[in-house]
Amino acid sequence: MQKTEVLYMKTIAILGSTGSIGTQTLDIVRNNEDLEVCALSAASNVTLLEEQIREFHPKLAIVYNEEAAGILKSRIADTATVVKTGMEGLLELAAMPESDILVTAIVGMIGIRPTITAIEVGKDIALANKETLVTAGHLIMPLAKEKGVQILPVDSEHSAIFQCLHGESQNRISRLLITASGGPFQGKKTEELEGMTAADALKHPTWSMGKKITIDSSTLVNKGLEVLEAHWLFDVDLDQIEVVVQPQSIIHSMVEFEDGAVMAQLGTPDMRLPIQYALYYPDRRPLPGDRLDFTKLAGITIDKPDMETFRGLKLAIEAGKTGGSMPTVFNAANEEAVAAFLADKIRFLDIYRIIEESMKRHKVIAHPDLDQILETERETREYIRSAFV
Amino acid sequence: MQKTEVLYMKTIAILGSTGSIGTQTLDIVRNNEDLEVCALSAASNVTLLEEQIREFHPKLAIVYNEEAAGILKSRIADTATVVKTGMEGLLELAAMPESDILVTAIVGMIGIRPTITAIEVGKDIALANKETLVTAGHLIMPLAKEKGVQILPVDSEHSAIFQCLHGESQNRISRLLITASGGPFQGKKTEELEGMTAADALKHPTWSMGKKITIDSSTLVNKGLEVLEAHWLFDVDLDQIEVVVQPQSIIHSMVEFEDGAVMAQLGTPDMRLPIQYALYYPDRRPLPGDRLDFTKLAGITIDKPDMETFRGLKLAIEAGKTGGSMPTVFNAANEEAVAAFLADKIRFLDIYRIIEESMKRHKVIAHPDLDQILETERETREYIRSAFV
Repeated sequence: MQKTEVLYMKTIAILGSTGSIGTQTLDIVRNNEDLEVCALSAASNVTLLEEQIREFHPKLAIVYNEEAAGILKSRIADTATVVKTGMEGLLELAAMPESDILVTAIVGMIGIRPTITAIEVGKDIALANKETLVTAGHLIMPLAKEKGVQILPVDSEHSAIFQCLHGESQNRISRLLITASGGPFQGKKTEELEGMTAADALKHPTWSMGKKITIDSSTLVNKGLEVLEAHWLFDVDLDQIEVVVQPQSIIHSMVEFEDGAVMAQLGTPDMRLPIQYALYYPDRRPLPGDRLDFTKLAGITIDKPDMETFRGLKLAIEAGKTGGSMPTVFNAANEEAVAAFLADKIRFLDIYRIIEESMKRHKVIAHPDLDQILETERETREYIRSAFV
Repeated sequence: MQKTEVLYMKTIAILGSTGSIGTQTLDIVRNNEDLEVCALSAASNVTLLEEQIREFHPKLAIVYNEEAAGILKSRIADTATVVKTGMEGLLELAAMPESDILVTAIVGMIGIRPTITAIEVGKDIALANKETLVTAGHLIMPLAKEKGVQILPVDSEHSAIFQCLHGESQNRISRLLITASGGPFQGKKTEELEGMTAADALKHPTWSMGKKITIDSSTLVNKGLEVLEAHWLFDVDLDQIEVVVQPQSIIHSMVEFEDGAVMAQLGTPDMRLPIQYALYYPDRRPLPGDRLDFTKLAGITIDKPDMETFRGLKLAIEAGKTGGSMPTVFNAANEEAVAAFLADKIRFLDIYRIIEESMKRHKVIAHPDLDQILETERETREYIRSAFV
């Protein structure tokens, strides 16, 4: 890749480069001569990570799994890339002096500590890791403000809202309207959900996503996490956030202002757009790809979410209103339950039951620090493993 | 009206206060304690202007018609408001030292000279007068730039685009998508249009508007004028502007950017929103009124305009591409034709024929100054009166 005639290079470290968001982030880097990568990371997918290293020549590569790290090390011994492992490796990646921006494309609460480290040393964050704000928003947002760091949403819904809010006064927001695709089970009733398997849920209609997020989409837990995230990201009350089911995913989200004006961001379902928007914010750059066919706007449907059947959203809001350590319980319980569901160990509706039971028994810590959050996570997972799986 | 506890008063002069935009501008003033009016004007509606003077206590009132001015003068002899008349009066209103912003809510080319005068003395312009940019955009926009004056669109479509562009880089626009309601005759074929009367056209479905603009809406001339206006206002090529027929007028207009993102402004059809947005830009203020019912988004329809049947848009684009004095001919011919149509002197389809004939015979002046524009207007009107009416 020729990197000539570029006035300013933006250097990116990617936490979770082998997943859906990670690979699409690398697509953006591939198409833009003024972007370069200084670090990549994966849990254990050494094969794809090796390919990425040979293409993008990062200085550092982290494989979380130690054994896999050893394999990669020997495979890329001919390159200049240094391989490290574990949480220590992720923290080194997060704080790398070379990087301008950290893309947190990793899934799960494992992303929180590296994100905090990156903010502490002044890196902007392109945030694709929902758990960070859901569980530690009360720590992250004040810290980012203190360090003058931008938290740039990569999620399509939050990016849409972020685009709608660009240039607007914070105090004029009336409502955020987050779009939900409704997931693969949209319209089904509780009886029908009884027998649904992971395979059924993984037939997601519109967006190309990872497995965990696809299950979360089918339970509306994903939308619940997004509501909690939006609450922190945009500093609005949970009561000002509404979910609108728009299965065609043409309207990516909307903001209603105090004057009644509604700003919406629309487009094709292409995650590269929010990723690129975060990397270049506040500028836009050309992005090749399909353009929205406006005639399709005529076919859209709009519904309220069925919060009684798909209780993920309701439970999330309940956790958010309780606050403190409760969103951590909600999130950790869901992670455990989804993992069990994907392994065919529990049934679909058990996901809600497990989340609900975990929340019921939890004694809330009002202002948890990071250790308390991680301890709450550990306890919740332990409880679920002993009680349900 | 109590005007206490207000830190900064914004003082408004209204050109055309008795029309649809003028009266709605006064609604906004009525609801906001930090707005006041220093001048009002009307063509001849003395009765309504007297009411407005007694409520808003302007320093100056202009009645364009001299006889009507005399009548008003005697009727409001008990007030402190000074009454003046004619173009001289309009120019005095435009340049009033007290005003911060001139609302050009007057219809027709009569608005151009006062607008230029206001820009020359540094007043921001809340622009509701389409003819200003259509015929003199090449003079107005460079002048506004030179004087550091903001041209703030009041039209719902242009305001929507203006809101979508707020905070964005000019050079990242891919397309402007201007919404058209389609007008009362949407879907009709040429044969059906033959017998249509002014009364038929005045049954406009969605927006509350004046008579002239309602006819322009039914011919698509209005949309053509808006395209020409958008070309100047947002500095984009005519080829980058598309018209989208969206009869429910829920999407007020859209902008597509180079990254494929589409920003849209939606809302109820309430002209007070764009008026208020222009008066307070870049801030928003609360505006009481109906809010958009999002379920209605499911019922919207999207069509391409029928430019062969409703040739107003096509002729406008043709005039715009020719440029120079041609848009003035287009506009003046339309004004004459619509006046004749409203007086039942010509038939609906004659409007297109008159515009077309006027454009055909015109010898284009490539870079007309204001006098040449106004002379072109006069000649065009004279030709039509002698040849058609």
